[in-house]
Amino acid sequence: MTPIRHVAVVGGGAWGTALANAAAAGGRSVTLWMRDRAAAHAAQHERSNARYLPGIVLADTVSATAEAADLAGADAVLLVVPAQAARATLAHLASSLPSRAPIVVCAKGIEAATRAFMTDVVRDVIPDARVAILSGPSFAADVASGLPTAVTLAAADADLAASLAAALSSPSFRVYYSTDVRGVEIGGAGKNVLAVAVGIVAGRGLGDSAKAALTARGFAELLRFAGAHGGRAETLMGLSGLGDLVLTCGSAQSRNFSLGLRIGAGAALGDATGGKLAEGAFTAEALIALAHAAGVEMPIAEAVAAVLSGRLTVDAASDALMSRPLRSE
Amino acid sequence: MTPIRHVAVVGGGAWGTALANAAAAGGRSVTLWMRDRAAAHAAQHERSNARYLPGIVLADTVSATAEAADLAGADAVLLVVPAQAARATLAHLASSLPSRAPIVVCAKGIEAATRAFMTDVVRDVIPDARVAILSGPSFAADVASGLPTAVTLAAADADLAASLAAALSSPSFRVYYSTDVRGVEIGGAGKNVLAVAVGIVAGRGLGDSAKAALTARGFAELLRFAGAHGGRAETLMGLSGLGDLVLTCGSAQSRNFSLGLRIGAGAALGDATGGKLAEGAFTAEALIALAHAAGVEMPIAEAVAAVLSGRLTVDAASDALMSRPLRSE
Repeated sequence: MTPIRHVAVVGGGAWGTALANAAAAGGRSVTLWMRDRAAAHAAQHERSNARYLPGIVLADTVSATAEAADLAGADAVLLVVPAQAARATLAHLASSLPSRAPIVVCAKGIEAATRAFMTDVVRDVIPDARVAILSGPSFAADVASGLPTAVTLAAADADLAASLAAALSSPSFRVYYSTDVRGVEIGGAGKNVLAVAVGIVAGRGLGDSAKAALTARGFAELLRFAGAHGGRAETLMGLSGLGDLVLTCGSAQSRNFSLGLRIGAGAALGDATGGKLAEGAFTAEALIALAHAAGVEMPIAEAVAAVLSGRLTVDAASDALMSRPLRSE
Repeated sequence: MTPIRHVAVVGGGAWGTALANAAAAGGRSVTLWMRDRAAAHAAQHERSNARYLPGIVLADTVSATAEAADLAGADAVLLVVPAQAARATLAHLASSLPSRAPIVVCAKGIEAATRAFMTDVVRDVIPDARVAILSGPSFAADVASGLPTAVTLAAADADLAASLAAALSSPSFRVYYSTDVRGVEIGGAGKNVLAVAVGIVAGRGLGDSAKAALTARGFAELLRFAGAHGGRAETLMGLSGLGDLVLTCGSAQSRNFSLGLRIGAGAALGDATGGKLAEGAFTAEALIALAHAAGVEMPIAEAVAAVLSGRLTVDAASDALMSRPLRSE
């Protein structure tokens, strides 16, 4: 296997920028590709991403660029764009990506239009791609500040997973590896939807006990979904499943939780989103469609999808989320 | 089975008082036994527990008393005293408890002196007791305020569990039932220890991502422990396991999390506890002793026990908690 000396990060949002610095801290040289030419130029010369990750200095070994040609030398490519933009971004860059470099998906979600998981989207666009996925409880600001964080990287090939994990790890950013690609992407996609539900309950002022109960019930849904779609239970119980669920459902720093919070507090959907939908809003319908197809009950995800599409009022959803028949757990 | 019309609550702290009101809301008549004669008299006449649950009015069908003889008519007894006081309290009251009334333990912890789980402590004192356990994510203030909460009640006899769950449930306080007594008590005891660890990391300012990662790793420890001690994985993944862990590790309302928070922020142990140890501090040593006996690794619980006993500095513990060898999850 080619040693991973040079990493390309595709996507200059907060997470892409944080991962670029993390890989640099791990000893890699990094090319940070940003779609916006002016932003790339500013990042390269001002050594910061003022729009998405203000206050963080880009590591010396990170080069920001908007030139697809600059991706050619990468030994590994991190795809760090919003889930719904993954296909178009890859299609745009495919001819510039080095053919044998593994592609590490760092986007969390299910493609709404096709109900495809992210690694399948990559294989659709680049059929012979060596695909991996990186996910876990990691706010970009925490990673960029050098706070201790731990994530999971999965690839079907254990050696590839281990070598990518080693290449991206640094003392503060710890990357564990796994071969359960599907389990990792299910955790990352599902938790965004569940966080909207927990946010709604929080926004209605129903208390921390209710939030915790709903988080546990949401986890049970996600575990059932994973079981039906080929993810392993132990992966869901790990960093990329439970860990990320706890983070996303517990902090207003999460866009998905915040969206729920505003909806629960009574904001109209358009106002709640502030014009920019959180990932969970896109993924919700795809998640429940995949659940239906596999015969899996996901009442919490259903309620989120119904509220976001206007099929259910927040009052009715809140009742549905918190009252269930009295029965054995 | 005798219909459960009359419930006795033993223990007049916040949780006992909240449970007395919850059972009253479920249609039971309730005797709330408090050790402190003056407090019982005040509660009975002022209709509130000013010391532990200020601002909450006792339901009309709750009678507060300090007379053990008043427990005689109960169809079920809730034991709601601190875990380390359960044995002495039961021994004191045993002769006054109606012989066939089931005893529902609502204390979370392991007896430090004997390493016994709570239901075993009950059976030690009253060998032919019909024992159940109630546990789950439920701050007393949330339950007392009528916010929606959900907990688990377990008894070996499913009919007993179902009838107790039905008797204690009300629209806002939902009691699910299970037959996995050991699984429920392991979740309730273990989460207090893990919450101290997560509090320490929070107190050191290590960020929400680190807290979430540690919560997930703590859950994995608890699951291993349960597997070795006869608790079911699905119970640990439910309200009384994961749900309560999420609540306890995520809120400064939790005494155990708060203890860790103060320790992590640099308070000396004596100052951190404010003279009153959180339950997790008592349970930590017993938990790891039971883990050792079963050959289960619990590095997070070990670190908590070591910090609380002064065997490990907070700095060293914090490093141990957040840095582990890079490996497969």
